Order: sequence, then structure tokens, then C-alpha cells
Amino acid sequence: MSFTAADHAHMARALQLAERAAFTTKPNPMVGCVIADGERVLGEGWHERAGEPHAEVHALRAAGSRAQGATAYVTLEPCSHHGRTPPCADALVGAGVTRVVAASRDPFYQVAGQGFAKLQAAGITVEHGLMEAAARHLNRGFFSRIERGRPWVRVKLGMSLDGRTALASGESKWITSDASRADVMRWRARSGAILTGIGTVLADDPKLTVRLPDDQAFVPPLRVVLDERGRLPARSALLTDGAAPTMAVHADDVVPDYGDEVTAFAVRRGGLGLDLNAVLSQLAQRGVNELQVEAGATLSGALIKAGLVDELLLYVAPVLLGERGKPLFAGIDSATMSERLGLRLVETRQIGPDLRLLLAP
Amino acid sequence: MSFTAADHAHMARALQLAERAAFTTKPNPMVGCVIADGERVLGEGWHERAGEPHAEVHALRAAGSRAQGATAYVTLEPCSHHGRTPPCADALVGAGVTRVVAASRDPFYQVAGQGFAKLQAAGITVEHGLMEAAARHLNRGFFSRIERGRPWVRVKLGMSLDGRTALASGESKWITSDASRADVMRWRARSGAILTGIGTVLADDPKLTVRLPDDQAFVPPLRVVLDERGRLPARSALLTDGAAPTMAVHADDVVPDYGDEVTAFAVRRGGLGLDLNAVLSQLAQRGVNELQVEAGATLSGALIKAGLVDELLLYVAPVLLGERGKPLFAGIDSATMSERLGLRLVETRQIGPDLRLLLAP
Repeated sequence: MSFTAADHAHMARALQLAERAAFTTKPNPMVGCVIADGERVLGEGWHERAGEPHAEVHALRAAGSRAQGATAYVTLEPCSHHGRTPPCADALVGAGVTRVVAASRDPFYQVAGQGFAKLQAAGITVEHGLMEAAARHLNRGFFSRIERGRPWVRVKLGMSLDGRTALASGESKWITSDASRADVMRWRARSGAILTGIGTVLADDPKLTVRLPDDQAFVPPLRVVLDERGRLPARSALLTDGAAPTMAVHADDVVPDYGDEVTAFAVRRGGLGLDLNAVLSQLAQRGVNELQVEAGATLSGALIKAGLVDELLLYVAPVLLGERGKPLFAGIDSATMSERLGLRLVETRQIGPDLRLLLAP
Repeated sequence: MSFTAADHAHMARALQLAERAAFTTKPNPMVGCVIADGERVLGEGWHERAGEPHAEVHALRAAGSRAQGATAYVTLEPCSHHGRTPPCADALVGAGVTRVVAASRDPFYQVAGQGFAKLQAAGITVEHGLMEAAARHLNRGFFSRIERGRPWVRVKLGMSLDGRTALASGESKWITSDASRADVMRWRARSGAILTGIGTVLADDPKLTVRLPDDQAFVPPLRVVLDERGRLPARSALLTDGAAPTMAVHADDVVPDYGDEVTAFAVRRGGLGLDLNAVLSQLAQRGVNELQVEAGATLSGALIKAGLVDELLLYVAPVLLGERGKPLFAGIDSATMSERLGLRLVETRQIGPDLRLLLAP
């Protein structure tokens, strides 16, 4: 299949539109739609929030009767089922669109090719695969949840130039700059949940909330604490600030005394603590697409060692904390250079005085 | 003083020309010269090697009789003394140049304003300070040697993402990529000397030579080993490969048995080893403008602690070596966050799969 320059331009625009809902659309995928006739754009739309109209509906409304005979560019296969809104495939057929170009198939079992089939049955030309890699990258959390049954796991760490996350004393606040901390908020906002360990809660009593400018809408991510032995204090900020829901995960042979305020679930033990695969599977079942891990060296190291990290988001402050500072990951110990854990540098960006690195295993 | 766009363009060009001799001109400063009439360039030149003609001479030769009434742009004050070549100030006067624009004064005691004075005495208009910061940055080694009596100190280190330079076993070869190692060669080539510690020599037997494509000329940097107790083995590569001169530095209460092949000098003890200020002063007296330190955590850490590092050249390989790996700097231990050693990120660049950071204290 070959696509024209206009096809690429419209799909690129649709992807841009989709991303506008990065903070609000979860657990649904981000979807954008452009209705066009040749180079001319007739309507645009994106899916803002779960339960609200899909991208195609907004774009068709904007195009009005001009949609007749036009092409619809969608970043994800149009839905074919009655969910909280009617099927988009029906809407496209009804509007008289004659060609649908999709970036990727929807892996969700209720769609998975049936959206395309419905369109084709109505005589619409369907093409897909245009900018598919970009579309999958945009919704890497959604695809991970549906296809792998676990969230896309992003480990966020702030470190000094010499690879330390804190002083030997544990003091770690404000290693990185205001600019980096503001940047972290945007990554939190696109996450379905923020995961931390009980050690971090007991040491730092973090809030793990999203703080963004007032005009920036977002769906607050769930806050999840790995709390093997049920030690989460009732007075911790996570349980008292009411800023976002908090969930505790404990071992299945422990009966924690959390009180009524806490949602919790149990998983079996594994490795040095809880079975991390089971934790991730449970979070996927609860609709978490992207999971941001903001934890200490123990949990971050355990996830890396288990091969469960998809993305490492590293803020490097140009300071030296010294050799006694706390390491980035605990439990990693390469005996030979050939055993070392290799990653790939995906993106580098200067954030204020700091450096932000995005890496993939 | 205000300069025109043409003035800026000619000086930017002169700085580019100067830098062509980065590998060959030491211990002299890099100097470039453009002779121009308004926007029109009449002649260009740069100082290729110590003992050979200066930039002004080459540029005047290229301009010929057209230099009469023209402007000369030089990145450094023209010399006024008879060194290995006749004074450039005289050559500019002789050629009938009527205006000289210099980026910066020459701090060398035999010039230091006398070049300008000589030109002005001949009725030439002299202006200076155009792009001075860039000119000083280009020759930061030369300015450091003349003004501070010590070389510009660049510490080069290769490290893993988690801040380790080697495995616990000491195995460190090939942390960074081929591309990074080739890049290091260019930084070595512009250095007057490469400094290492006896620990590194005993452990790794490094060559510390410059390996560049055959058509790339360079003056080999001196190889300097801090060898407090006179332990440098006669069979080490530094003493047997004949690739570049090697110099040992030992404590002044030690009489080493180096044999005839080694040039050595003594300095007093200081701190945990040798007096590093004395070492740097001695190297400046031997004409070293830029000193590149390629050593282990002990020497690198001692230089950082002593405030003697001007530039940190850090190659970061996207690998994890684990918490037992060797640290970047030994002897740095911040007790509180306010005590941490802060640096400034000057430049970030991707080199093959690695990241190259240039930092300043």
C-alpha cells in the first residue's frame, strides 16, 4: 500500500490531535481523527475523555455534510461495538465517507478487525498501517495493557552526575531543579498509576500527586504502594490528602489493618518481595495503561532485574554527591563486562540546568 | 565601540581559521587572520605550527598589494617582539593596513598591549574586544597558562549510566563505544599533555597516544605519570612504545631508579599524594596549555576536590554496571545537600550510542 504526502500530513495531524488528550483519556486510548478531501481538511476531532464522544464523532460533526465522499484519517481502528458511546464505524458509514485510513488496528477484543470489517461491508475503502509505529508509540500504554496484559512500565529517577539518587544519609530532596520537577508532573499526568514502595513512603511520605497549571485538565493517576507486610501508616499523605485514590498491595499471607479508607489487593510473594508480574497484571486489569515507578533503588532495581522496565526516564542534575551516595538500582551486579545491562538512548533533552534522558532496555 | 555585521562575519571566519591548527600549533596559541575591504575578503591565514609564520603573515601574503588601506581581523593581538619569526605588527604596518580589529589582547608578557601600541604609533586604527569570549574560549589553555600559571585542566571520564567507570573487578575496557573512543582522540590531540596516575599505569598499562586518520597532522601530547614513589615500570608501554615523550613526576624525597629513558621532575608532597598545584605549575612552565586527565577515581577525585578542574568531559554509555562498580571520583563525600559539588552543563552531544557531556564547575 502506498500513501501520498497528503495522507501523511493528515495522519500526522490526527496523531497530534490524539495527544491532546494524553492527560484525560485514560484508560481509553488517545485517538485523533481528520476528515479531508485531498489536501483540504474538512473536520478535526479527538477523544477527550472516557465516556465522552470519540474522535470520529467530533470530526464528522465539524465536517458536516462535506464528509460525503471524503476520507477519514484515524489513528486507531474505529470501534464497532456499543460501549458507552455508539460505534464509530456506523457513524462513518452514515456520514458517507468513502475511504478510511487508519494508523493501526485496535487490539481490544471487542474491536480487533471488526471495525474495519464493518466499514468494508458498507463499501468503504479501508487502508491501515500509515505511521503505525508513531501511533503505537503514542498509545504504548494501551497496547501494552491489551496485548501483554500489563502496563507500560516507566521508571523515573533523579540522579546526580555521579549516579547517586540521594546522600548516604538518605537526604534526597531537590537533587534536580524546579524545571525538572515540573516536567515530571507531565509524565505523571499521562500515567494511569504511580507506583512506589513502602520504604519510600516511610522515609519520605511522598504525595505523588499531579501539580499542573490550573487550566490544564487531567485525570489523577492512582497511587499504588507495594506494602508486602501491611505497614502503610494511616497518617501518610497518600491516605490523608484526598488528592487522588491510593491503593495498597500486600502479600496474600498477610491480613493488613488498613481501615476502611484504603483499597487494597493481595498478590503472592516472589523474589525478594511481592510477585511483580502479578502486581502488573492486577494493575492492567484495573485499567492502568502507563505505570510510572517513582521508588527507591530496591524496587527500581528489582523491576530492572526482572526485565519489567519498558522505559527509563532519568533526570541528571549536574552535581556530584560522592561515592557514599545511594545508588540508582540495588541488586544489579555485573561480574563481567559482557554481563552488563545494556540500554538504548532514545531521547536527550536539557530541562533547565538538568539533563533528561529517555532510555529503553 | 560598535562593530558591524561584516566585522562580526570576518572575525567569526578568523576564529574558524585559527581552530584549524588546534592539533598542531601548541604551545603557541591558535590564531587566525582575515584581511578584508568592507565585506570583501582579500586574504586569509592561520598559524599552523610553532616556529612557522604567524596568521597575519599568511593573510598578508594572500592579500598582496590589496592590503593597502584594508582592515586586518586577528583573533589575538599581533606580536610586537622578535621571537622565532619577525613581529607581525611590523608586517601589518609595512603592508599599509589602516585598521586592525583584534578579538583579544595577548597576555604574554612580551606582547601584552605592545602590539597594539606599535600599530597605533604607526597611525593604524586599533579596535579590540570583538568576539572576545569566543576567542578566549578557543585558547582557554593558552590564556590559563599565561594568566594563571597552570594549564587548563580537562578531566575525561567514561562511565555507565549508573555512574560507574569500571566493574568491581576493575575491568573497564570498552565501557564506551568505538565512536566515543575516536572522539576522545581529538580531545587528546588538542592537549599539550595527558596526565594519569601510577595506579592506572600499573593496572591497565595504557598507551595514551593519539590515534587519528593518517592525513590528520598533530603534535603528540606529552604523557605525564604521577608516580609519587618512583614505581613506573621500565617495561610499561609509556616507556617502550616510543610514540610520544613520557614524563614522570615523583615526590622530592624519593630518588627513583628510572634509567636514562625517562624525563622526570620532583615536587613536594601534599594532600594524599603529590602537591597538585606544584605539578600543574611545572607543566605550565613546560608549555602545556591544555592538560587532559585520563586517570582513575583517586586522581580525578583529588583534582575535583582541590578545585583544579576546569572542564569535565564525560562519556556516558547507556549501560548499567551495578552498585559495586567503581565510582567516578574518590574522596568526594557530601554530608548535606548544600555541600554537594555543583557543575554547569555546557554541552550535550550524542556520540554513537553514547552521550558526551561537557561540564564546568
